[in-house]
Amino acid sequence: MNFHKFIRDKEGWATLAEEEKYSSPHLGVFAVKVRTPTRPEGCPWTTVHRKGAVVIAPITANGDLLLIRQERIPVRETLWECPAGQIEENAAHDETTIRDAALRELQEETGWELAGELIPLGLFFSSPGFTDEHAHLFLARPVVEGKSGPAHDENEAIVECRAFAPAEIRRMIAGNEIRDANTLAVYARLSAMGLC
Amino acid sequence: MNFHKFIRDKEGWATLAEEEKYSSPHLGVFAVKVRTPTRPEGCPWTTVHRKGAVVIAPITANGDLLLIRQERIPVRETLWECPAGQIEENAAHDETTIRDAALRELQEETGWELAGELIPLGLFFSSPGFTDEHAHLFLARPVVEGKSGPAHDENEAIVECRAFAPAEIRRMIAGNEIRDANTLAVYARLSAMGLC
Repeated sequence: MNFHKFIRDKEGWATLAEEEKYSSPHLGVFAVKVRTPTRPEGCPWTTVHRKGAVVIAPITANGDLLLIRQERIPVRETLWECPAGQIEENAAHDETTIRDAALRELQEETGWELAGELIPLGLFFSSPGFTDEHAHLFLARPVVEGKSGPAHDENEAIVECRAFAPAEIRRMIAGNEIRDANTLAVYARLSAMGLC
Repeated sequence: MNFHKFIRDKEGWATLAEEEKYSSPHLGVFAVKVRTPTRPEGCPWTTVHRKGAVVIAPITANGDLLLIRQERIPVRETLWECPAGQIEENAAHDETTIRDAALRELQEETGWELAGELIPLGLFFSSPGFTDEHAHLFLARPVVEGKSGPAHDENEAIVECRAFAPAEIRRMIAGNEIRDANTLAVYARLSAMGLC
């Protein structure tokens, strides 16, 4: 499994050693030794590599947010979430690739399509204490229902797709019903930007 | 590494098989086969086990949010984040244990202490497509500076602790400067609850 190009040694950081401990098509575990700005001698760490991802907040013409309900095996729960997906490992990770991934996941997971703007909302790290996983966030508005319907990946179990009014979304977040980092991160950005 | 008690087979879910593939003091990789509500035959998956965690949004008497700046080796960045930490694997994971963990992490990471209420804000999953990691969120207000100062873990590199006014926090979230799931998740909850 090759590291993608997003996580790089920046100024003050240097990867001194890296040993693969476990690898599957979906993740890789590495024992690393990394020089940091305050630890020039290098610090040992165990990190999990994951592909980069995209998360889309699809807003309909009347201002509702589309969510999918998805079975999530690691936590044994079915969760209401924004559509999301991974970026191919060997892709360029440039702006076009990332936007294309967002549009593809929107269509495949919801069956809806962009009819307006795809607005970047930055990125976030899901758990930077142990994994390099990061997701690029987007607002897609407006979205319209496509003719061909969703095209779900055979490994996913998306059981429902529904539009929620802003007040319902607020209630679901306040009430601990929306509980995945992707959807909470995109909501935090939209809220801080005055967009929800 | 034993699973903690939080992630359990609920109605419609059953763990049919589980094989440890890799284990370190900080994470475990398991190949599992899990029956889900829509896949009674069972679905194979690779999951990463992590300890449960706590995240605290500490608010000072004048309404500022305390953040720490921490070196995060997996992403090679130093990030402004809410204080957070893990719950001991063999602890009971009851309300008292979780609240005690929150108060301990607040004190150890910031040197500040609770002088009022610790308000639970639910929990979230950092990346439920591959890991069972979850964090309990809390609002701590007001907090006051303790006499003994922080007591940083030797494995952490917390380089700064500072209070930020609400408008600065909004600007840092909108501007992609605050970019970890913990802080964005707690902000989403506070925002949806009308608390920030």
